[in-house]
Amino acid sequence: MTLTPTPADKFTFGLWTVGYNGGDPFGGPTRAPLDVVHVIEKLASFGAYGLTFHDDDLFAFGSTDAERRTQIDRLKAACEATGLKTPMITTNLFSQPVFKDGGFTSNDRAVRRFALRKVLRNIDLAMEVGAQTFVMWGGREGAEYDAAKDIRSALERYREAVNLLSEYVLDAGYDLKFAIEPKPNEPRGDILLPTVGHALAFINSLEHPEMVGLNPEVGHEQMAGLNFQAGIAQALYHGKLFHIDLNGQRGIKYDQDLVFGHGDLHNAFALVDLLENGGPNGGQAYTGMRHFDYKPSRTEDENGVWESAKANMQTYLLLKERAKAFRADPEVQEALAAAKVAELAVPTLAEGEGYRELIADTESYENFDSGAYFNGHGFGFVRLQQLATEHLLGAR
Amino acid sequence: MTLTPTPADKFTFGLWTVGYNGGDPFGGPTRAPLDVVHVIEKLASFGAYGLTFHDDDLFAFGSTDAERRTQIDRLKAACEATGLKTPMITTNLFSQPVFKDGGFTSNDRAVRRFALRKVLRNIDLAMEVGAQTFVMWGGREGAEYDAAKDIRSALERYREAVNLLSEYVLDAGYDLKFAIEPKPNEPRGDILLPTVGHALAFINSLEHPEMVGLNPEVGHEQMAGLNFQAGIAQALYHGKLFHIDLNGQRGIKYDQDLVFGHGDLHNAFALVDLLENGGPNGGQAYTGMRHFDYKPSRTEDENGVWESAKANMQTYLLLKERAKAFRADPEVQEALAAAKVAELAVPTLAEGEGYRELIADTESYENFDSGAYFNGHGFGFVRLQQLATEHLLGAR
Amino acid sequence: MTLTPTPADKFTFGLWTVGYNGGDPFGGPTRAPLDVVHVIEKLASFGAYGLTFHDDDLFAFGSTDAERRTQIDRLKAACEATGLKTPMITTNLFSQPVFKDGGFTSNDRAVRRFALRKVLRNIDLAMEVGAQTFVMWGGREGAEYDAAKDIRSALERYREAVNLLSEYVLDAGYDLKFAIEPKPNEPRGDILLPTVGHALAFINSLEHPEMVGLNPEVGHEQMAGLNFQAGIAQALYHGKLFHIDLNGQRGIKYDQDLVFGHGDLHNAFALVDLLENGGPNGGQAYTGMRHFDYKPSRTEDENGVWESAKANMQTYLLLKERAKAFRADPEVQEALAAAKVAELAVPTLAEGEGYRELIADTESYENFDSGAYFNGHGFGFVRLQQLATEHLLGAR
Amino acid sequence: MTLTPTPADKFTFGLWTVGYNGGDPFGGPTRAPLDVVHVIEKLASFGAYGLTFHDDDLFAFGSTDAERRTQIDRLKAACEATGLKTPMITTNLFSQPVFKDGGFTSNDRAVRRFALRKVLRNIDLAMEVGAQTFVMWGGREGAEYDAAKDIRSALERYREAVNLLSEYVLDAGYDLKFAIEPKPNEPRGDILLPTVGHALAFINSLEHPEMVGLNPEVGHEQMAGLNFQAGIAQALYHGKLFHIDLNGQRGIKYDQDLVFGHGDLHNAFALVDLLENGGPNGGQAYTGMRHFDYKPSRTEDENGVWESAKANMQTYLLLKERAKAFRADPEVQEALAAAKVAELAVPTLAEGEGYRELIADTESYENFDSGAYFNGHGFGFVRLQQLATEHLLGAR
Repeated sequence: MTLTPTPADKFTFGLWTVGYNGGDPFGGPTRAPLDVVHVIEKLASFGAYGLTFHDDDLFAFGSTDAERRTQIDRLKAACEATGLKTPMITTNLFSQPVFKDGGFTSNDRAVRRFALRKVLRNIDLAMEVGAQTFVMWGGREGAEYDAAKDIRSALERYREAVNLLSEYVLDAGYDLKFAIEPKPNEPRGDILLPTVGHALAFINSLEHPEMVGLNPEVGHEQMAGLNFQAGIAQALYHGKLFHIDLNGQRGIKYDQDLVFGHGDLHNAFALVDLLENGGPNGGQAYTGMRHFDYKPSRTEDENGVWESAKANMQTYLLLKERAKAFRADPEVQEALAAAKVAELAVPTLAEGEGYRELIADTESYENFDSGAYFNGHGFGFVRLQQLATEHLLGAR
Repeated sequence: MTLTPTPADKFTFGLWTVGYNGGDPFGGPTRAPLDVVHVIEKLASFGAYGLTFHDDDLFAFGSTDAERRTQIDRLKAACEATGLKTPMITTNLFSQPVFKDGGFTSNDRAVRRFALRKVLRNIDLAMEVGAQTFVMWGGREGAEYDAAKDIRSALERYREAVNLLSEYVLDAGYDLKFAIEPKPNEPRGDILLPTVGHALAFINSLEHPEMVGLNPEVGHEQMAGLNFQAGIAQALYHGKLFHIDLNGQRGIKYDQDLVFGHGDLHNAFALVDLLENGGPNGGQAYTGMRHFDYKPSRTEDENGVWESAKANMQTYLLLKERAKAFRADPEVQEALAAAKVAELAVPTLAEGEGYRELIADTESYENFDSGAYFNGHGFGFVRLQQLATEHLLGAR
Repeated sequence: MTLTPTPADKFTFGLWTVGYNGGDPFGGPTRAPLDVVHVIEKLASFGAYGLTFHDDDLFAFGSTDAERRTQIDRLKAACEATGLKTPMITTNLFSQPVFKDGGFTSNDRAVRRFALRKVLRNIDLAMEVGAQTFVMWGGREGAEYDAAKDIRSALERYREAVNLLSEYVLDAGYDLKFAIEPKPNEPRGDILLPTVGHALAFINSLEHPEMVGLNPEVGHEQMAGLNFQAGIAQALYHGKLFHIDLNGQRGIKYDQDLVFGHGDLHNAFALVDLLENGGPNGGQAYTGMRHFDYKPSRTEDENGVWESAKANMQTYLLLKERAKAFRADPEVQEALAAAKVAELAVPTLAEGEGYRELIADTESYENFDSGAYFNGHGFGFVRLQQLATEHLLGAR
Repeated sequence: MTLTPTPADKFTFGLWTVGYNGGDPFGGPTRAPLDVVHVIEKLASFGAYGLTFHDDDLFAFGSTDAERRTQIDRLKAACEATGLKTPMITTNLFSQPVFKDGGFTSNDRAVRRFALRKVLRNIDLAMEVGAQTFVMWGGREGAEYDAAKDIRSALERYREAVNLLSEYVLDAGYDLKFAIEPKPNEPRGDILLPTVGHALAFINSLEHPEMVGLNPEVGHEQMAGLNFQAGIAQALYHGKLFHIDLNGQRGIKYDQDLVFGHGDLHNAFALVDLLENGGPNGGQAYTGMRHFDYKPSRTEDENGVWESAKANMQTYLLLKERAKAFRADPEVQEALAAAKVAELAVPTLAEGEGYRELIADTESYENFDSGAYFNGHGFGFVRLQQLATEHLLGAR
């Protein structure tokens, strides 16, 4: 069963993903750089919706204005020619030596000012290329040593930065929202805003929290052993899933950035089910970009790069099919009912009930047979998981 | 160097900690139960400030009212006799079969109602024994399987529960605050509100967020590979460090509940430094209870239980001494300055400066020498960490 | 697609697995004990091959000889009646307080002697019930604290124990082999022989290494973040895969003992492929028991217990089908060839070649074009993994 | 307390350690290369014993013979001038694109032949510079995807390679031993011989196992959550601790290569105690090099590089002092006795006792009071750990 991606699927790719040259901590590049026009043509031919990029992906750090402009114009022309969009862009505040202790939260104030300027310039570019989302991954905002970083000051400086950027966008009347991308560690020993939760909490402290949401990444949460689907559900609960980074990770280790589905397959299945079927009446719970932030393995040549790009989309579409069949299966519906999954959506209190009425209800406590839950009232969760497994395996 | 704890240190212990009988997933108890009066007398004799407990610690689940009353009265009398306080209590919503899928977020609505009643009753007890903090550890709120739990509904039910409890306390005019204790997993495969961050984000959604804060536990954050000191700093930043659980954990594995300091010693040092010296003018950043939530190892007899209780306090006091010496050392002060640690507290923008002025400042970008950070502008973080290490080792 | 297990599949279950009562570190039992005869009848009706057990599973620790005999006879009669076999048994050296610091390697010599006697008695039982494999899981052999255990002495005592047991079996002329089960931690902070590798190394130091192999468990290796399939391959390479424990684990955390396939599905697929198709000419690489060492979740009642037992077998059989289709697919064969997977079986040296000839071969070095591996010579591993993924999903 | 290193301490450093330029997966170099002569002069001035290196550290891959010779001669002259030794060298089989699927176990046979030649050439250099140990870290020997690598063939090829190299050294009459360095992952998803245990098991399969031992690295074992001190004890037990890599790691995450002691301090203390005091009569258990394989943090400039180099030695010497005081403390001796630590060195069987005599000894089983271990026979491990903690903190 081969499924054909179309732009309606809203699949997007980072320029730095297919463009990854294979360098890692123990080895240099294994592939030559890919030209942005070539990348755009390829992705468009595969049915992708868009391309995303950091400033430094498109034009090298330190480019002259003319060099920068040439690259922007080439990008725009290729997008025009192919119909590919650029719905998200982001700023590189991590590769250059100047950012070795971070950008917005470097201990060095001059660096923080430089970082803000770099981002402001890039926001202008976001507008020029029609992006609606501006991602902020603070990979260098952090520390290896506890005494080296005053975390509360770091949060305050991060807040100052996002407040200023929000004001800039508001004043300009831009229709642009920010999406923070959490990560627990690597390249820093510990990174500020390490998980979906920490970033959500931080957003609530901002002057314009409505302008800022999340861009969670599969592998980043899984590097902390956290359940990605559960984290996405909490982000949705708080109305903050502004963007999403799909990829694969095999457990708690270095950031692998594998193809989506080449990591924890059960959780990928649950994620696609949530995104596609978790909305009102079983519709989409998330209508934004399905953004692949992965790396083609260092062992591959350019042909392998394109194979890997297509694999991301193929697996997503397959899981979407599996999730639809899972939801449609009467045996699954019956098992969900037996497990009382929907009963959790029913308020615990009856209409109009408060604590007084609850306390007065002797059925709730005095006459409640808690002992019946020993050797009884089984939830049937394992059976439900087995049904999910068999659907995932395409065996139903 | 032996340091003597006094009640002014605000050391408290859970009744379930020294009372832990040694049972674990692969073996039964190795110690007989300890009577609460005996525990109170022992802890008071060691210089502890208080005792904390779950309802089911003090009187067995299913006790008659008379049995319950007897135990409460014995506790109160022993506290009166010894001067020990009961500043925090909490409710057991995890041990009984009825809570096998959770309390506030069980898929089974009748269980949720029962859980609320059990907590309401325990809030009354909190007031009776003079507790100021009511901890909520939702260890069974979670799932092993993604399809088994609708996370958004679970958050909504948890919210409903905390709103109701807050209203109850408000109406009663009680001076009691709630403290949520996050944990990533165990005993459930994944637990709701898995980290400090997720809990902080959830609190912001409540009707009375000011009544609800956190009770973070060293080992729980470290089970997700997160930096505990950094998490505490973020909790302080948001004004939500209402209580703290001190113990030891050796990396990402099952919940070890070792003695404080018997796990990650560097992070324990940084934590004590933050709590004791991170406040205004170097004073305490946190003035609440130093609560030890640990388990005396299963290999120990009662004598070992008391040795372990004393070890927690001894190590805390030693680290407090080390942290004071670290802060007072001129070489450390010089290294902190070289690392620009305090410069992070200086706003990135000058007084009155906005984005327009920043953009106009060519020193911030156009004339900024970012290249000087290659092979220069070293932060000296390793030297600072070595000074911390040598202070920790008592070698300075 | 429902597949029907038969005894020819050699599926076996521990009495303690379906018999798990739901107790965990934070809660008591949720299910009543299951009688062994009932278990045997159920498993036989599902098509299982056999039952395995610890001594203490069948008759409580401290049973009189008569009580013990009654239970053994009931087991044997039920096996006879149903055709179920008992191909493996094992000794419980971890639940009782006496073993709180281990059995063979307790610091307390009297405990070590007691442990040896308990095992010797159980070896006699192994013979009586026709077991061919005697598993040794040393879950309590370990420590929480580095100073508390002299690891070299512990290894020497473990060695002394296994040597004695081997001698006992040899002298008796029993056809019984030992299988050591590694685990990194839990219930001890660190366990002796923490991985497949450490146990293999230890076996080489024994007097009768040929009598001792491994019983690796999926979740135990994955608790250390290790690749289980790779570990099994190394065990097979050294001729030491004597038995195997199949279950599911979701990453580095407490020991979950989920149903096989409810954890890392990619690795489960690779494992079944290795066991079933990794032998000579694509036949079985392992012909022993497929033993499920899992726990039915605490949320389940007895019905859920049996559903979970069947789920293990169903998933194994489904993965076996998927693996056969994967191997049979010409596109997979082509991708394997492109990735040079089989070329690794070709010796690096030519027939008769030694280092002198290799050094003389200028094609191997002086004229070798190492630069061609930049931007060329891609291995196509991602495409191969995508083919595996699609087969796993039943999409080819 | 500042301790002064001398060559008698046998501290050695990799040229790639102080020479690390700061490049990581998300950023380029932050420091200029250091010339080898400068490094040698610096290390000698600090009291180090020696320098170690990969071929590609000293002369770039692809150097002409003349370039290579120039660098070798410069190294030798600087060593002669300063007295610094080169006791270990190793081969880089991981940085170049040609090794993207490994060296000895690349699926590509031509690569394997090239790798062998590169190593053979480097063995000659080892001899020229007087090295006694030849380390083999197979960082690229592994895979991201289970189907991509036939692990049993990979082990067979690795074995073929080591056998050939051993034969080469034997025939040449060189006094050189090999030391395999295990690592669980990074840069490959899973690496062959992932732990100390797996490597020990592999060595036993070689033609000349006596020529091959281990070079375990602190962080590598800790990346799998394993206890490094315990692993070293097992390596010593099997007589295979040929070399050791000291550094720091903060839990299960990417390979941090921090300064020794800047990671798990308890385990570092236990390690130094084992190496320095674990031998016969409390002498050294290991007399080889104390080799620091660490990376000066990317945030540092050259001054920070040298500070970090000195920090490694300083911390080692401090821990050595602490360990000596710990062993000399009568209270520790008493606690060790109470915990029966030395009793584990007493054979479980009496002199001349076999299983027959053990079975006949009714004290060992029939009359043994196993019940006394409930609520009694406490081991006092927590007290012992607290004594270790207080010694570590310099508080005794």
